[in-house]
Amino acid sequence: MVGPLTCYPNIEAIPGPIDMAVVILPAPAVERCLRELAAVGTKVAVVFSSGFGEAGAAGKAMEAALVEVARETGIRLCGPNCLGVVNAFDGMLATFSQYADGANLPGPIGFVTQSGAFGTAIAALCRQRHLGLGFFVNTGNEADIDFVETMSCMMEDPRIRVCTGYLEGLKDGNGWMRLGEKSRTLRKPLVVMKVGRSEAGSRAVASHTGSLAGEDVVFDSVTRQAGILRARNEEHMLDLAQVLALCPPAEGWGVAIASQSGGAGVQAADRAIELGLEVPVLGRDTQVRINQCLPGFGVATNPVDVTGQFVAQPAILRDSVRIMLEDSRIHMGMIWIELMHKNVDLLAGVFEEIQGSTKKPFVVAWLGAPEDAVKRLAELGIPLLRSGEAAIEALAGLALVSQWQRELPHEHKGLELGVLPNRADGLISSLEAMEWLGHFGVPFPPTILVRSRGEAQKVQGKFGGAVALKIESPNIPHKTDVGGVRLALSNRGAVGDAYDRIIQDVMSNSPNAEIDGVLVQLMAQPGVECVVGLIQDPIFGPVVMVGLGGVWIDLMEDVAFARCPISSREAHSLIQGLRGAKLLNGYRGHPPSDVQALSVMVSRVSAIGTALGDRLGELDLNPVLVHTHGVTAVDVVLTLRGCEA
Amino acid sequence: MVGPLTCYPNIEAIPGPIDMAVVILPAPAVERCLRELAAVGTKVAVVFSSGFGEAGAAGKAMEAALVEVARETGIRLCGPNCLGVVNAFDGMLATFSQYADGANLPGPIGFVTQSGAFGTAIAALCRQRHLGLGFFVNTGNEADIDFVETMSCMMEDPRIRVCTGYLEGLKDGNGWMRLGEKSRTLRKPLVVMKVGRSEAGSRAVASHTGSLAGEDVVFDSVTRQAGILRARNEEHMLDLAQVLALCPPAEGWGVAIASQSGGAGVQAADRAIELGLEVPVLGRDTQVRINQCLPGFGVATNPVDVTGQFVAQPAILRDSVRIMLEDSRIHMGMIWIELMHKNVDLLAGVFEEIQGSTKKPFVVAWLGAPEDAVKRLAELGIPLLRSGEAAIEALAGLALVSQWQRELPHEHKGLELGVLPNRADGLISSLEAMEWLGHFGVPFPPTILVRSRGEAQKVQGKFGGAVALKIESPNIPHKTDVGGVRLALSNRGAVGDAYDRIIQDVMSNSPNAEIDGVLVQLMAQPGVECVVGLIQDPIFGPVVMVGLGGVWIDLMEDVAFARCPISSREAHSLIQGLRGAKLLNGYRGHPPSDVQALSVMVSRVSAIGTALGDRLGELDLNPVLVHTHGVTAVDVVLTLRGCEA
Repeated sequence: MVGPLTCYPNIEAIPGPIDMAVVILPAPAVERCLRELAAVGTKVAVVFSSGFGEAGAAGKAMEAALVEVARETGIRLCGPNCLGVVNAFDGMLATFSQYADGANLPGPIGFVTQSGAFGTAIAALCRQRHLGLGFFVNTGNEADIDFVETMSCMMEDPRIRVCTGYLEGLKDGNGWMRLGEKSRTLRKPLVVMKVGRSEAGSRAVASHTGSLAGEDVVFDSVTRQAGILRARNEEHMLDLAQVLALCPPAEGWGVAIASQSGGAGVQAADRAIELGLEVPVLGRDTQVRINQCLPGFGVATNPVDVTGQFVAQPAILRDSVRIMLEDSRIHMGMIWIELMHKNVDLLAGVFEEIQGSTKKPFVVAWLGAPEDAVKRLAELGIPLLRSGEAAIEALAGLALVSQWQRELPHEHKGLELGVLPNRADGLISSLEAMEWLGHFGVPFPPTILVRSRGEAQKVQGKFGGAVALKIESPNIPHKTDVGGVRLALSNRGAVGDAYDRIIQDVMSNSPNAEIDGVLVQLMAQPGVECVVGLIQDPIFGPVVMVGLGGVWIDLMEDVAFARCPISSREAHSLIQGLRGAKLLNGYRGHPPSDVQALSVMVSRVSAIGTALGDRLGELDLNPVLVHTHGVTAVDVVLTLRGCEA
Repeated sequence: MVGPLTCYPNIEAIPGPIDMAVVILPAPAVERCLRELAAVGTKVAVVFSSGFGEAGAAGKAMEAALVEVARETGIRLCGPNCLGVVNAFDGMLATFSQYADGANLPGPIGFVTQSGAFGTAIAALCRQRHLGLGFFVNTGNEADIDFVETMSCMMEDPRIRVCTGYLEGLKDGNGWMRLGEKSRTLRKPLVVMKVGRSEAGSRAVASHTGSLAGEDVVFDSVTRQAGILRARNEEHMLDLAQVLALCPPAEGWGVAIASQSGGAGVQAADRAIELGLEVPVLGRDTQVRINQCLPGFGVATNPVDVTGQFVAQPAILRDSVRIMLEDSRIHMGMIWIELMHKNVDLLAGVFEEIQGSTKKPFVVAWLGAPEDAVKRLAELGIPLLRSGEAAIEALAGLALVSQWQRELPHEHKGLELGVLPNRADGLISSLEAMEWLGHFGVPFPPTILVRSRGEAQKVQGKFGGAVALKIESPNIPHKTDVGGVRLALSNRGAVGDAYDRIIQDVMSNSPNAEIDGVLVQLMAQPGVECVVGLIQDPIFGPVVMVGLGGVWIDLMEDVAFARCPISSREAHSLIQGLRGAKLLNGYRGHPPSDVQALSVMVSRVSAIGTALGDRLGELDLNPVLVHTHGVTAVDVVLTLRGCEA
């Protein structure tokens, strides 16, 4: 006995089946203990012990041995090197986290964290808000059960409404997408924060967790694509979780703001506009009705300035908020107040009345809120945020999640690929790549390989228009860099000279390159320069990218990513999200470019990415010219790699 | 007597001189009261009463009458429509703000607010941090004493170290610049927040305060130029104030991060990099020394992961932070911890020891900090921030202010303008504008006005190179829009035809325009297209702008502003702040453009802006071609206006 707890001399001595074991032994003793636990049919072991994968080669070997036991025996493993698990619903505290020191407040939020210390702090911040946390799981080294699997189980629990997560590195890209899908299907929003945005940050993640970091920008895009909200930091994540757990969905992007300070209303409107929300002027009728409630110096447009008079006459606040929420332009409401230590009961009453009279989501931004206000509103299930900006940011997240839930799922019919290029790994010749991609609907201009000046001239004559000449070599991915490209050649003489000069320049700049010949390509019609490509992400596999070409991609890094495959509708919205999208949509009297054709191309390329799967090295279509009608890829770099790579 | 207070039947009955009066009367009674106060020599009156400028025409008239009394009698006026003044040092609470309900905590921070309710909340948040607020002033309608004057006085008080302000609208642009200068000279940082960034926000500000809103982007640029920090919101402002009030200056941009959570270190590093701070890898020596303090699983690069072991061995934290701050690459430190309710004393002791051993600034980011920790660290004068990101953001502000204080003040020698164009208000002809600006060192290509086809051809012959032809008319500021420009004409025939077509097109597109003739201009050498101009800001007067031309300005709004005049060194850093600056600095093997020449031009244009003063309408030099050597302005639009405008 230790205190009230019965102790046993060894595992076999424990009577009855073991649902879960907590292992707190020195690292070298854990493997044997796991085997013994498995032998008596234990389902899962939570291993607190550290000194494994995070501690050098010997630790890694011991961790591999634990995984081996799990595979062999079927026992599941949380950790090692984790703080454990809290199930607040059932009062199970299998953890040594400081979080367990406080009161247990079960509730609709689930939380999975890859960091013990940071996760503990986040859970504690959640408690400070009187926000119920149903589950807390620190996954530690994730030798067996990982973040994605934990989150997926948690999401299925009927007591959970919103899932939150703290991430440092992700291993399972497929699982991530499925998690997003599940979150949409079950209508249980998932909000995550992930550290490691910068290079210095990634350096630290790598040294901290040893996990492989994909590009953060890819993680960011793909997470959004999956329908998972990414929070900027811990407070932002909890703000989002609070509003998503307590509010009904928003049917649109219009937000109405009522405040006791004109300035606070302005601040909220500023932030709303920055985040893509709308702050519509209220309808004339609505304004007239609100004006009947307000004192003379109130303002009824939007933001609505209710002034401080409502302390004397609560109806001012109650009625004006009710009326503004009835306006059809409005899909969400925000109420801004401050301090009011003496009027918590009065205000809670007003908010409860408002809550009873609307089905639209609304939140309270309460600056310097007294502790009893935080508690009272939590009991009422009304989100209380600490600042106007935080409230607006949370509403923007609600609007986005609500839109995701309204959207139909995208269809991604597989593309049947023909025979893969019959090639070893490495760079595929341009001509072969063009033919092969052309077969799957990526349009290139007519292109013919020639091996002499005379042949080049003949082909140009046959094409009958201006042509480009480009070196063709398995060793030269970037033809321009070695003088291997000449453009806009419209007569026999120019073509002949260009041929000779290309051969000459390439031989002098790249003397060891094997030269297959020179491509003669009919010049494409002019168009807006774009770039379309595929990259192999270490986490998510083939990822399609699209961006505007030239300085836009080089200087502005104005590129969008999505995991393959995507529909042309998804591609379209990806393209419209580019900062330079206006260039495509008809800028300064130029006719609009054929964004639809570009979207179809991006979708096809994404399907090719999916089909290539592990064999994809990278694909770069640059430039892609988007015409008034149609689209043409002008140049291509495609590399393949072995399936084992 | 009211309670312990002596009352008097009227103002004359009050014995002795009156330093300050608080007026709480219905609006129509205020004017008479002010006169009576002035008659007995009262220095200043704080008028709480509302119903003035914010309440329609009658209110405006009454407010004008109050200003009249002030001008006549010399009594100074705070308000009307204000919550009043708190001088916490001397226990003077002339306010009806809720803020006065709490304990009085005097300290080195001064606060001026244009909003009563929002300002009250901000002051209360300041108190929650146990951060001493020396002065609180709500300026209300600012009929007499305004934000700038109040702030300026506050800054001179020796007990104040940092000034903070909440702004909705600014009237006194000159005062703003002087305030910034004073802040630098006295080494008392000024941090402000201003609402009204968006159009919806500005609409609300206008209806709320009736004050004239300049462009927010101009306010933002000029505020930075003045050496005033602009905070994003109230919490950000208080974070900055706290760090600026308690920390010594930072001698550079390198920050070291120590945390008990690897992930939190990563998060801080991410944010630091985003804000332009450096997170240098610590020197080899430093790493070796820190490793001697750390447990085996700690990480000594930067961020430094001190692990949670320091609770058992405080020396781990103390020594590793001391050592990392000794590294010459490091100018600031940040320590991240969480919760630790049972170890406040221990940690406060550690931080005090660190404080005693370094002259470099450091802050503590303490998640879920217990109330007694907040209090203890405030007593020690060590900034405690609520999150890692907030701490890093505050350090970035400290680094910036410290750099401003290290910089020499800029010299702005006035430019002696010749005779102003002898013209009525409105558009100045291009030729006149070119001559006049050329006189002050803005280079244009040779340009001659012609009135016939033959003359045009003759001038082209004389120039001997390709020319541009441009319509010259007092009614046509945008020549291209009416077909009034033809470029790159290199022979007699082309020049003649272009002349005829211009005349034809302009007459058909703009039949009522008065045509002075056609300008023949030698084509400038190629260069990177920029735009340089002047605008007349309603608050700050002449403001110079510079940006990259074409899509950069049209789509990206990549433009920088500064109040006139600026030195060429200031212009240089303005240009380097453009997102597209890489285009000028030699992009993709292009030779770098002459940014120095562009900087000189921008500085000259700014001096012209200052000299024109109120007479400036606007000036637009577009495009300005920046060559490998030198710079040329190719076209100009200059409008003047009457001095009274």
